[in-house]
Amino acid sequence: MRLRNKPWAKEKLAQYPQYAVGNPAEHKGKWNEVFGNDNPIHIEVGTGKGQFLLGMAKQNPNINYIGIELYESVIVSALDHIIEAEVPNFKLLSVDAKDLTEYFAKGDVERVYLNFSDPWPKVRHAKRRLTYKTFLNIYEQILIDGGEIHFKTDNQGLFEYSLMSFSEYGLLLKYVSLDLHASDFEGNIMTEYEEKFSQKGSRIYRSEVKYMNEK
Amino acid sequence: MRLRNKPWAKEKLAQYPQYAVGNPAEHKGKWNEVFGNDNPIHIEVGTGKGQFLLGMAKQNPNINYIGIELYESVIVSALDHIIEAEVPNFKLLSVDAKDLTEYFAKGDVERVYLNFSDPWPKVRHAKRRLTYKTFLNIYEQILIDGGEIHFKTDNQGLFEYSLMSFSEYGLLLKYVSLDLHASDFEGNIMTEYEEKFSQKGSRIYRSEVKYMNEK
Repeated sequence: MRLRNKPWAKEKLAQYPQYAVGNPAEHKGKWNEVFGNDNPIHIEVGTGKGQFLLGMAKQNPNINYIGIELYESVIVSALDHIIEAEVPNFKLLSVDAKDLTEYFAKGDVERVYLNFSDPWPKVRHAKRRLTYKTFLNIYEQILIDGGEIHFKTDNQGLFEYSLMSFSEYGLLLKYVSLDLHASDFEGNIMTEYEEKFSQKGSRIYRSEVKYMNEK
Repeated sequence: MRLRNKPWAKEKLAQYPQYAVGNPAEHKGKWNEVFGNDNPIHIEVGTGKGQFLLGMAKQNPNINYIGIELYESVIVSALDHIIEAEVPNFKLLSVDAKDLTEYFAKGDVERVYLNFSDPWPKVRHAKRRLTYKTFLNIYEQILIDGGEIHFKTDNQGLFEYSLMSFSEYGLLLKYVSLDLHASDFEGNIMTEYEEKFSQKGSRIYRSEVKYMNEK
């Protein structure tokens, strides 16, 4: 995503601590307090402008969502959506995915969403892909036993790579669609990117994988 | 595949025992004697008219190939190709894939090829798909430890199903291409079907999976 510098973004996020969590390490192991209930927590890593989680939060009021996005200048757009929609079950966190274990304890998260992650197509950049083994290990450290990753992309190379990476890590491939929008999958919430590129005819790939307890 | 009845097929196969193996159970555990060498054996289950294995046999003279095809009226076309090409490392076997363990012992086979297998799209026919778990178990009983299945299809539903079936069985997904003919995969030998349908614009899906020893 091309970024526009927004020097005021940090300040605006700080003005809405009820939506943009400012001190995440303090909530490690007790995120239920942030939401005021014990509903399961699903996170999206790379939440961008938040359209996906906003739709999910409206669709599933009994699930708590946290959008993780490194760039404050991007996540501030998600903040605007939340303020407008007044959804209580969608919070934002502007941190680096590499550091998730600083903010979440084992079992804090039930599901990780990855949507249209940066494909990092060069082989020498493979370690930066959010489905690389080090990231799969980070997710495992914060997920419940049997937790899942739900992954969508229009990037064929990233999807191929990710299926292999999931398999090598020992994850169970529960679901795979090689053309999501032509499939019978119901309740799909589109990201901004997905709307744009599927209109141009790009196929959307989707998978669900599960961490196996016996691992 | 639509079948034309060829009542003379059985007789013709019997006339060429050097190519069409007539008494396979006798060779169980000692297929090297059939080929007269100790080269690894790769089989194709559902070999049809044999174009794929004929190309493979020419490309890889140090590998022995056995084409398995239930229908004598189909495999007799493969026989014609072998007679014409005089390839010593390609044999035919007209048996049912369900019975492979009657003819092959554990370790007789290094690799199984599945190409454009019948998709059996109805859920109630899932058990007939050659990537259903009972077939994966049959292949395991005749493959070496760490043996592989190499699978191609243009059928999206069968490929999605097979990836899930492989994963559930505990196979390692070593390789996956969601558009083989646009990929950098080298040395692809096309089947008759693949030639026809890729010309019509169908995508070809391909995967390699490996049986893990620790299973």
